[in-house]
Amino acid sequence: MTDFPAALSAAAERVETRLQAEIASLPQSTVRDAMAYAARGGKKLRGFLVLESARLHGIGPDRAVAAAAAIEAIHAYSLVHDDLPAMDDDDLRRGQPTVHVKWDEATAILTGDALQTLAFGLLASEDAAPDDAGRLALLGTLAHASGGAGMVLGQALDISAETAIDPLDLAAITDLQRGKTGALIAWSACAGARMAGADPAPLAAYAQALGLAFQIADDLLDIEGDAALAGKRLQKDIAAGKATFVSLLGVEGAKTRARHLVAQAQDALAPYGARADILRQAAQFVIARKA
Amino acid sequence: MTDFPAALSAAAERVETRLQAEIASLPQSTVRDAMAYAARGGKKLRGFLVLESARLHGIGPDRAVAAAAAIEAIHAYSLVHDDLPAMDDDDLRRGQPTVHVKWDEATAILTGDALQTLAFGLLASEDAAPDDAGRLALLGTLAHASGGAGMVLGQALDISAETAIDPLDLAAITDLQRGKTGALIAWSACAGARMAGADPAPLAAYAQALGLAFQIADDLLDIEGDAALAGKRLQKDIAAGKATFVSLLGVEGAKTRARHLVAQAQDALAPYGARADILRQAAQFVIARKA
Repeated sequence: MTDFPAALSAAAERVETRLQAEIASLPQSTVRDAMAYAARGGKKLRGFLVLESARLHGIGPDRAVAAAAAIEAIHAYSLVHDDLPAMDDDDLRRGQPTVHVKWDEATAILTGDALQTLAFGLLASEDAAPDDAGRLALLGTLAHASGGAGMVLGQALDISAETAIDPLDLAAITDLQRGKTGALIAWSACAGARMAGADPAPLAAYAQALGLAFQIADDLLDIEGDAALAGKRLQKDIAAGKATFVSLLGVEGAKTRARHLVAQAQDALAPYGARADILRQAAQFVIARKA
Repeated sequence: MTDFPAALSAAAERVETRLQAEIASLPQSTVRDAMAYAARGGKKLRGFLVLESARLHGIGPDRAVAAAAAIEAIHAYSLVHDDLPAMDDDDLRRGQPTVHVKWDEATAILTGDALQTLAFGLLASEDAAPDDAGRLALLGTLAHASGGAGMVLGQALDISAETAIDPLDLAAITDLQRGKTGALIAWSACAGARMAGADPAPLAAYAQALGLAFQIADDLLDIEGDAALAGKRLQKDIAAGKATFVSLLGVEGAKTRARHLVAQAQDALAPYGARADILRQAAQFVIARKA
């Protein structure tokens, strides 16, 4: 059986190479330099999910890497914009100064903008899926998952919550998470099925539980994590008085919930049998990670 | 012969209706409200060009309006981000407070982000072109025209120019314009040919001259225009000491150049005969407009 950490790092390298090649093909500019910088590093978990989901549907990495690079470009754009002073105001990301610190705010805004554009350009390219229908399915669903009905909606709810009088309850936090991190994770896990024109339902169920577990782990990391390992500032949620899964469930309650979600994610993969073992390991990893 | 102002306003209404319907279909959020606000009004010249270009290729407005709405969503996103304090720092747009003034910077960043996403979502939708190949051609070329090789590149060059020691010369200003405004105008004018799988070369030549004339007219408007009619602050270029077509050619020189470009744009439409008369009028309008 393939070992998950090895598979993840092989996927990360493959996805990063494709993404950097796409950025390098743009004309020289400060924004291009900042795009390359922002796209560098990270776990590339979303890209890994795309490649694994494609493999489950008989689509090799050469035909899936463009889509994997696309979702990582969307993820990178969201981080660059999230880190801006008007948003989360973070100066450290993946252990390095954030884009607006290294360059300036205008460059960070344009860099996020161009990374988003690059993602859709990648999905429109010939190697993003075996056929036109697959490419269009990926494009339409990514627009839905990342825009005003998905990731951006989650961020908008997050901002509204900061000025709301009552802290969010568990249902509201779950809704917010579904947009902020869940939608891109779900898109990634379902991508292979969409490329192949197959039913994405089992992978969607897997991703829904996985995304929630991922967010709970993130909230736990914010409390218990090591900033040096995480490569970003921690304990920001407490400082901001934000409601999180941990503030609502307690540390032990959150850990129990995360373990249940991992089991649920793993069960959802039953239709794929042993071929999905690496995705089962991925679910385990999501709650054990230190960064 | 159809009268150009009537055709433009009919197109604007049709495009705005489609764009607002798309925005209204998103879940309620502050960002959705701000998207609707940012997409309202304006000439919708780019959307008009898409509809006319489609008509020249036998594609009716029902099959072209999604693409026209998409380019207007891209244009609106670029204005919202351009107006931010870190960029041009404008408080007035289309006669109304800009998005970050009416709401806040975080909302403006997310609103621009989600408008860009919406544009690609619109192009992936069933009614964006007669067939899958047409939709993918529109998607790939829009990513190229609006991203780090097109519009965003133009904006990056514009920012670099502000801190450069030597002011830009005519060749550099032309390059910058080709990205900043030219690329979206060219995409719009060529859209119908791309939907139909036809050669976009004559429309590309039309658009290249038109886009340059449009920018020269914009520079003239900044000097000679009426801020109340324009709905935005003027004389910003002079205040910022920026090199423009007018600072390099003089007012009369710029007007002469613009007239030549209009004639050039009109000549490029020869292959379409009288069917392109409305696009010839559009070229004339671009240098006569007051807003």
